[in-house]
Amino acid sequence: MRVITSPSLLILHHHHGGATTLLRSFRRNFSFFPPSFSISNPKSRAYSTSSTSSAEPQPGSLIIESNERTGRSGSLASPLTHLDITQKIDVNPPKGTRDFPPEDMRLRSWLFQNFREVSQLFGFEEVDFPVLESEALFIRKAGEEIRDQLYCFEDRGNRRVALRPELTPSLARLVIQKGKSVSLPLKWYAIGQCWRYERMTRGRRREHYQWNMDIIGVPDVAAEAELISSIVTFFKRIGITASDVGFKVSSRKVLQEVLRRYSVPESLFGRVCIIIDKMEKIPIDEIKKELKSAELSEEAIDELLEILSMKSLATLEEKLGDSVEALADLKQLFLLAEKYGYSEWIQFDASIVRGLAYYTGIVFEGFDREGKLRAICGGGRYDRLLSTFGGDDIPACGFGFGDAVIVELLKERGLLPELGPQVENIVCSLDQDLQGAASAVAAKLREKGQSVDLVLENKPLKWVFKRAARINACRLILVGSAEWQKGMVRVKILSSGEQYEIKVNELQ
Amino acid sequence: MRVITSPSLLILHHHHGGATTLLRSFRRNFSFFPPSFSISNPKSRAYSTSSTSSAEPQPGSLIIESNERTGRSGSLASPLTHLDITQKIDVNPPKGTRDFPPEDMRLRSWLFQNFREVSQLFGFEEVDFPVLESEALFIRKAGEEIRDQLYCFEDRGNRRVALRPELTPSLARLVIQKGKSVSLPLKWYAIGQCWRYERMTRGRRREHYQWNMDIIGVPDVAAEAELISSIVTFFKRIGITASDVGFKVSSRKVLQEVLRRYSVPESLFGRVCIIIDKMEKIPIDEIKKELKSAELSEEAIDELLEILSMKSLATLEEKLGDSVEALADLKQLFLLAEKYGYSEWIQFDASIVRGLAYYTGIVFEGFDREGKLRAICGGGRYDRLLSTFGGDDIPACGFGFGDAVIVELLKERGLLPELGPQVENIVCSLDQDLQGAASAVAAKLREKGQSVDLVLENKPLKWVFKRAARINACRLILVGSAEWQKGMVRVKILSSGEQYEIKVNELQ
Repeated sequence: MRVITSPSLLILHHHHGGATTLLRSFRRNFSFFPPSFSISNPKSRAYSTSSTSSAEPQPGSLIIESNERTGRSGSLASPLTHLDITQKIDVNPPKGTRDFPPEDMRLRSWLFQNFREVSQLFGFEEVDFPVLESEALFIRKAGEEIRDQLYCFEDRGNRRVALRPELTPSLARLVIQKGKSVSLPLKWYAIGQCWRYERMTRGRRREHYQWNMDIIGVPDVAAEAELISSIVTFFKRIGITASDVGFKVSSRKVLQEVLRRYSVPESLFGRVCIIIDKMEKIPIDEIKKELKSAELSEEAIDELLEILSMKSLATLEEKLGDSVEALADLKQLFLLAEKYGYSEWIQFDASIVRGLAYYTGIVFEGFDREGKLRAICGGGRYDRLLSTFGGDDIPACGFGFGDAVIVELLKERGLLPELGPQVENIVCSLDQDLQGAASAVAAKLREKGQSVDLVLENKPLKWVFKRAARINACRLILVGSAEWQKGMVRVKILSSGEQYEIKVNELQ
Repeated sequence: MRVITSPSLLILHHHHGGATTLLRSFRRNFSFFPPSFSISNPKSRAYSTSSTSSAEPQPGSLIIESNERTGRSGSLASPLTHLDITQKIDVNPPKGTRDFPPEDMRLRSWLFQNFREVSQLFGFEEVDFPVLESEALFIRKAGEEIRDQLYCFEDRGNRRVALRPELTPSLARLVIQKGKSVSLPLKWYAIGQCWRYERMTRGRRREHYQWNMDIIGVPDVAAEAELISSIVTFFKRIGITASDVGFKVSSRKVLQEVLRRYSVPESLFGRVCIIIDKMEKIPIDEIKKELKSAELSEEAIDELLEILSMKSLATLEEKLGDSVEALADLKQLFLLAEKYGYSEWIQFDASIVRGLAYYTGIVFEGFDREGKLRAICGGGRYDRLLSTFGGDDIPACGFGFGDAVIVELLKERGLLPELGPQVENIVCSLDQDLQGAASAVAAKLREKGQSVDLVLENKPLKWVFKRAARINACRLILVGSAEWQKGMVRVKILSSGEQYEIKVNELQ
């Protein structure tokens, strides 16, 4: 089929069953899609780095071509008519989203498999929640970026719903729902797609997958230590070392202590945290202005900024004294890190507060030591989230680990695994009449747990070898009539070139 | 914390750090949520059968409680204030959706793992697409149920988008996008969540997961035979036999042939298929009326209904003659089924047309032989889908297999697997001071690939044994100070009760 386009007319030439049909197709531009005729076909890759990605479809590149025939015809020749409508669609996934063709899916599966294996090594159980939740679950008034970028809308039943931006509120909801029927502590992990809606800057995406691990019901920092240990285990397993990444650790209780000393109302706590979290992104004067507008005194702001610049627990202790809760927590965490054996991975950094309003204690962030990438993961303690939803509070902590930055890091370090397709056998009949015989051979092998790519058409041997190479098959099994009459097939080991005949029943 | 509610006032008593705070919280009912105070807490289960499910939240049961303090306070005692807002949320997932707590997630993972293993046994590669697509991708005018129930909305950028109701259109989009860069045939599988929006009848859900396998680029029915073989393999693997389920198979070419004989325009083909697909759901007079309004003659309708009642290929051949394409396809398929060894699973049934507009050839449906359940899975050939999106057609076929009916069937047959939590070791310190030592022991075991649930608090031994039983641990490892001073730990094999001391380094 050739498609010739002109700005107002789409002419389709069909060659099907020998018949040529000339169709006139009048374009109907839906009001929300500016006119365009291009089908862009970027080599869009799910795990391309944000800086090199040019995969974003242009706004309005989705067009619809309505193909309504002016007359009727009894002809069956046209392949286009039986669906009543012909559309010329944008072949790209929606703006900011990804397809996962096999090569990208293999990487995603590898990543998820490592998330799962580490979680299970730590005795965590997998859970999941709906990707679509009530908007109310995510509405907090602290000025979080995540709230501003909520992918929300009204559904057909006029309910306010949102594609989840994170997993923790759903987890909290489920914990409240389960109530006394579960025995604490819960150790749960989840791998789920999360969404945000933002004005698209170059290469930023609107969805990512996030690995979460949460411990519900443990007030002690032993829980945070266990969480960081699991991330370290994950890093080691995929080849990342302590010289590649580290964790910056602090506690929101440090901030809380400063606010307390300056009699700042605790109702401002979440908001102040969110302002401070922006410190690396916006100028310091801007931060000061925002803190002022949150009614902090000049003195409190100066004190706050001084403390936030601290990189050692000793300095912090000098400043705050040794009796504050924050210090005891942090010391205990560093002590446990030593016992676990991951001391070299973590460092105190008072400037870490994280961008979610609900953290109450220890917060941590995994970072790239070369300083090129955004945070790799982050988490902390959120002992008071449940009561904000009307439940009884249970001490809890957890982390989120996205699928984007880690892949960029693996690329940078040359650590991306080589993951090809892998099928053990390719089975092919040498004769159209033996297709059924080949099916029988494939079925026998599969019964024995052997994976088989069965050639479903009559193809030349050259084609079969090419396909065998593409799917990394180990064995080629040919079903030819001479052998088949003896109940045998011809086997070729593709790595060595070794060939032999074997009885079908003896195939292993 | 105690919560006392009255219709217009929420009073919260906080006991935290010895302080008691009395908060007044004025309810703010958002206009789209009718007032209600109940937090319903159903024992909602993801895989409960539709007939017994009472998990549906009632319309409007989501409420929001806004807790804004009237005055300010410097007190840090209230756990509620730092997020600025307190909501009393519905603890249920949104109407028609599911949470997956661990017990349900285990079943889902088991099911998906079987989907994956079977797909890989057949040499298929996994792919995925965005759950959110342009609405245009799913708009067909044939009157499909799937189209009427499209979960669509306008996003914040005023784009018409939809939560995918099925995976095939996204697959077609990706195939067009990939163009000549892929070598045919493609054998792809996907497991994805699909959505529909419908007025909720009792227990019907708005989302389900669907396993798809598709073969792109094979015109021969060998492809359909391979697809059905993979589903049969799946059934066998999970304990379902040919006496539990079967496949009804037909070809849309039968219908096409009848329409051709009565000179019905092919533009009506999709619509006629959709009408006929409803035959088991609505009265036959209704069907006739709809066919009439699709401008079929009485004679054509009678002929159609006669042919649709046929259950044998021989009868069909008598009626249509032996030269029609539909018959050749069906005969070849049944021949191949014999070679594969699944003849007893399949039967010809002309009434099968399936409810999607784009099928063009063989169609099939997996059904419960007791006749209690809806279709378990379904699929067919869709050789002309790509051109409806503006691409060049490639012969293709595939199936969809949902996660709901199969679980109902397994339950009915008593075949649901027993899937408990499973952690190899539980490690516990006998002394608060030895928490770090226990962490070190856990880290050592995990390095050796052993899964460990580490007890993170100082708990009585009775509690530890109870937890060990709950998670099905094999070994309990106790870190006590006397043993620890010798570099040893106490091991108890939980199945036998056997106990011994062992050097930490010798633990395997």
